[in-house]
Amino acid sequence: MFIEKINSPEDVKQLSIKELNQLSIETREVLLKKLSEHGGHIGPNLGLVELTIALHYVFNSPKDKIVYDVSHQSYVHKILTGRKDAFLLPEKYDEVTGYSNPQESEHDFFNIGHTSTSVSLACGLAKARDLKGDKENIIALIGDGSLSGGEAYEGLNNVSEAGTNMIIIVNDNDQSISENHGGLYKNLYELRKSEGASENNFFKTLGFDYLYVKDGHDMEELIQAFQSVKDIEHPIVVHVHTIKGKGYKLAEEKKEIYHAGPPFDLETGEYKFSRSNPESYENRTAEYLLEAMKEEPTITMITSATAPGFGFTKDRRELAGKQYIDVGIAEEHAVALASGIAKNGGKPVYCVFSTFLQRAYDQLSQDLCINNNPALLLVFAASVYGMNDVTHLGLFDIAMMGNIPNMVYLAPTCKEEYFAMLEWGIHQKDHPVAIRVPAMGMITKGIEDTTDYSLLNKYQVTHKGEDVAIIALGDFYQLGEQVVDQLVKEIDIHATLINPKFITGLDEELLNRLKENHKLVITLEDGVLEGGFGEKIASYYGPTEMKVKNYGIKKSFPDRYVPEELLKENGISTEMIVNDIISILS
Amino acid sequence: MFIEKINSPEDVKQLSIKELNQLSIETREVLLKKLSEHGGHIGPNLGLVELTIALHYVFNSPKDKIVYDVSHQSYVHKILTGRKDAFLLPEKYDEVTGYSNPQESEHDFFNIGHTSTSVSLACGLAKARDLKGDKENIIALIGDGSLSGGEAYEGLNNVSEAGTNMIIIVNDNDQSISENHGGLYKNLYELRKSEGASENNFFKTLGFDYLYVKDGHDMEELIQAFQSVKDIEHPIVVHVHTIKGKGYKLAEEKKEIYHAGPPFDLETGEYKFSRSNPESYENRTAEYLLEAMKEEPTITMITSATAPGFGFTKDRRELAGKQYIDVGIAEEHAVALASGIAKNGGKPVYCVFSTFLQRAYDQLSQDLCINNNPALLLVFAASVYGMNDVTHLGLFDIAMMGNIPNMVYLAPTCKEEYFAMLEWGIHQKDHPVAIRVPAMGMITKGIEDTTDYSLLNKYQVTHKGEDVAIIALGDFYQLGEQVVDQLVKEIDIHATLINPKFITGLDEELLNRLKENHKLVITLEDGVLEGGFGEKIASYYGPTEMKVKNYGIKKSFPDRYVPEELLKENGISTEMIVNDIISILS
Repeated sequence: MFIEKINSPEDVKQLSIKELNQLSIETREVLLKKLSEHGGHIGPNLGLVELTIALHYVFNSPKDKIVYDVSHQSYVHKILTGRKDAFLLPEKYDEVTGYSNPQESEHDFFNIGHTSTSVSLACGLAKARDLKGDKENIIALIGDGSLSGGEAYEGLNNVSEAGTNMIIIVNDNDQSISENHGGLYKNLYELRKSEGASENNFFKTLGFDYLYVKDGHDMEELIQAFQSVKDIEHPIVVHVHTIKGKGYKLAEEKKEIYHAGPPFDLETGEYKFSRSNPESYENRTAEYLLEAMKEEPTITMITSATAPGFGFTKDRRELAGKQYIDVGIAEEHAVALASGIAKNGGKPVYCVFSTFLQRAYDQLSQDLCINNNPALLLVFAASVYGMNDVTHLGLFDIAMMGNIPNMVYLAPTCKEEYFAMLEWGIHQKDHPVAIRVPAMGMITKGIEDTTDYSLLNKYQVTHKGEDVAIIALGDFYQLGEQVVDQLVKEIDIHATLINPKFITGLDEELLNRLKENHKLVITLEDGVLEGGFGEKIASYYGPTEMKVKNYGIKKSFPDRYVPEELLKENGISTEMIVNDIISILS
Repeated sequence: MFIEKINSPEDVKQLSIKELNQLSIETREVLLKKLSEHGGHIGPNLGLVELTIALHYVFNSPKDKIVYDVSHQSYVHKILTGRKDAFLLPEKYDEVTGYSNPQESEHDFFNIGHTSTSVSLACGLAKARDLKGDKENIIALIGDGSLSGGEAYEGLNNVSEAGTNMIIIVNDNDQSISENHGGLYKNLYELRKSEGASENNFFKTLGFDYLYVKDGHDMEELIQAFQSVKDIEHPIVVHVHTIKGKGYKLAEEKKEIYHAGPPFDLETGEYKFSRSNPESYENRTAEYLLEAMKEEPTITMITSATAPGFGFTKDRRELAGKQYIDVGIAEEHAVALASGIAKNGGKPVYCVFSTFLQRAYDQLSQDLCINNNPALLLVFAASVYGMNDVTHLGLFDIAMMGNIPNMVYLAPTCKEEYFAMLEWGIHQKDHPVAIRVPAMGMITKGIEDTTDYSLLNKYQVTHKGEDVAIIALGDFYQLGEQVVDQLVKEIDIHATLINPKFITGLDEELLNRLKENHKLVITLEDGVLEGGFGEKIASYYGPTEMKVKNYGIKKSFPDRYVPEELLKENGISTEMIVNDIISILS
């Protein structure tokens, strides 16, 4: 096999076209074997095999610098740049991350996981090159889906202004995770249909030179195109038509389902772990929203290109009809849109992953919260139990959103609370409301939640005790229960347990009352400690005799961590907390 | 005068073309009188007189809904919608804000002050309209400068997908605050030059119908255009060519200088307050950077369209040459660009106002800090003494940036420290560094700062005392000095004074040492308390006997406040703090 002999791009350059094509076949086989056994991004990588090989055949990485957008399509690049063993050998599968990573290889320039960033980052590499008087090629590879994000547009608009070498490769497979949304995609369709000849050309309107590659799986056409733009002295867009999932029939046919996933059966395509748990917050939320939409025609589910993550499968999207909006990978627009809908009397529900909501901090503050419009946000995977790639951490939401005025951020501890909050959040008209959807599975307390959430910042005392009070937020409520139980067993202390429910405000009355017969308050939160919930409690009690100990994750960027290990490193386990309490009290 | 009889848009509709033109003349006179006496946005409003009158002549506000981007150009709209007295009568000048404001009028739909948001917000109004089955016109007015922001693009891309009534008016005066930057502006030039006929059309590539208005000061042409698009059943861009500053010769000629400003002499155009203080951080920073650039060709000053705010006047921009980049109103791109430059060995310095940096939270986290690239950010107006419009508050930066891992955020307390930090920040290669530029004027201590800032999180004890320690951050250091002095006078307590310098980390060694002979730690910070610096100190001392009291601004969105009053409302004055200390100690 050729692939076994590829230790660097130099080895790719030695091959003939025939051999490069053979390398493509082998690469696809290797990818499919690893992906089916290990899981990962399927469609994006299968679609880029020839393109990546051609890139490394023509350009001189790492002198020439390639920046991959999202970088979930950089597997072939990794294979060709000295990391093939992590794809060939099952015992080494986990030696590479799923994204580009400078710690792994000099051929990778950034840790990238969010969308639409490649052009701007590459623009920076190019600017430094120009100032230093260097001459290498700077290449940004970006998918059609990523073009819907504002940062990509800002980058494109600025690249063409710079006027020096920059090669933007648009990998156009006419698909995001789901189908594309946005006016731009009509233009991309026009360009594909006219084989690049259409007069009306998005890239040209931004000042780019432009080249169309009809068949992104034709090695010769690709090599010729890349050779023609190598060392070009101005910015150019090379628009390449590829097929997502190329070479694996099921992935070509069901692009959304085989965008990414866990291990699967290569023959049947069946995923080895079910991806849709009926008893999940995602699924039950989708069911709830679809029912609610029937009764209220202004309820609108908004997603920024990640509908499948929230149980909004294709059939459900069709059921929702006009009450469903996919804005593309455009979180800023999503938040402003929600604010506008709420302002005009509609009921927007924006479902979003914590990590991606980061892209809309200013819109949360300005477009939504200053205007105090009653939009509802459902924030998923905001937890140590969420995604664990360094670029996909969901741990920063409380520090980010929890300090924005007017925002009411709620943390349910069970199914009943979650749906009571959801019901209130959709129908109230007074505040921007967000709910931190639990990530540790659906826990039921079996008791209906009749809380009136319009009375803001009322914490619930679920177990009355003395000496020690545990304020256990959202996902960590169950941990709080365990600590309370253990305290009885170990030192016969009957602690108070509190479910605060509200992340964004203090129940000062309750906090004052605790002073009467408590010496120590413990806070537990499932996220980064700095800027979070617990620090506010510590600050409140600062001038008093009350002692406070905050538990959460110390700010850091952990990568591919094991949740239990990360928690222990941060002193979070029933045993460690109980020991701390004993030590503080003594 | 007609203007005196305009109490609502209904009154505009009664006028003939001739009378409307007369109203334009009067409106300009009124604007110039108020602006010259009161200050405000000059060019943007003078350029929109006819357009706004024509809008209200044709459409039926508030049923038809107009959303102004940035909304610093909504003065004429305010005059025509029942708020003329705030422009005609000097004693009422302050009865309206400088931006659209729903609390003022039912003709305003959002508090808006940041750029590029109008299309997305209007998109939300339109979506709710469609779901409710209503039929009004939704109009978003956006300037050419604002089109450089990613949120505007995300909005445009989605509007055309929605496919129902939406009228986007592009107010193209070929100018941002300074000149425009970006490839898009070549296309706008092409469109103006061809009077809208160019085949290559940015708006059409995003799926829009398109109409060009050649003379945005010709009432008849404007009215005809608006009538032709009223009640249109699909999205359309009406591209109107206007002249910024129209009708005031100086403003037409010097567009940057008369974008906005304090009161000025109508005859000579001279501003009544000097806008360039040579002894300001802005000016001295610009001088420093220009000198540094000469020695190091990779130092690059980056701005997102607000160069004049940082002393980068036109002549200085020319001096900086290729070492100066204005990215347009594209903060996301600016941060990613800076990361890329730093990665490839350059030395980027991004100068930015605190309020606008909010637009790049995710880029700070992902593009910059996860990658740990040594870019330098200078954060201006991060203070209660910064801008005081609700949409321009600079108070949230610590909560926003201070909790991002890897970021080193510094708070100088005087000129010497600032320049020592700047020098270190540019040349170090280990961290993303940001400096919170003081906003209370240049204070000199007259002592060279020889601190080695590469030893992170080392606080400086500037006055050794006991019982009470005051940790006084950045701008509030002088307040700390006053508290220390007053404590001696009032209760003969010799407090310790600490200049922490580092916002983003605790000096645990020092904090532990304080426990030996201190009972109370006071923290002072010039920003929002929640998620800020002081809470971390409170959390650190939480489990100990040390008492802590944090001072800062309680999270809120104050509008057009008086700094001293806001501080007092938050318990911040030497006297109040000293009284608190006495009460806590007793």
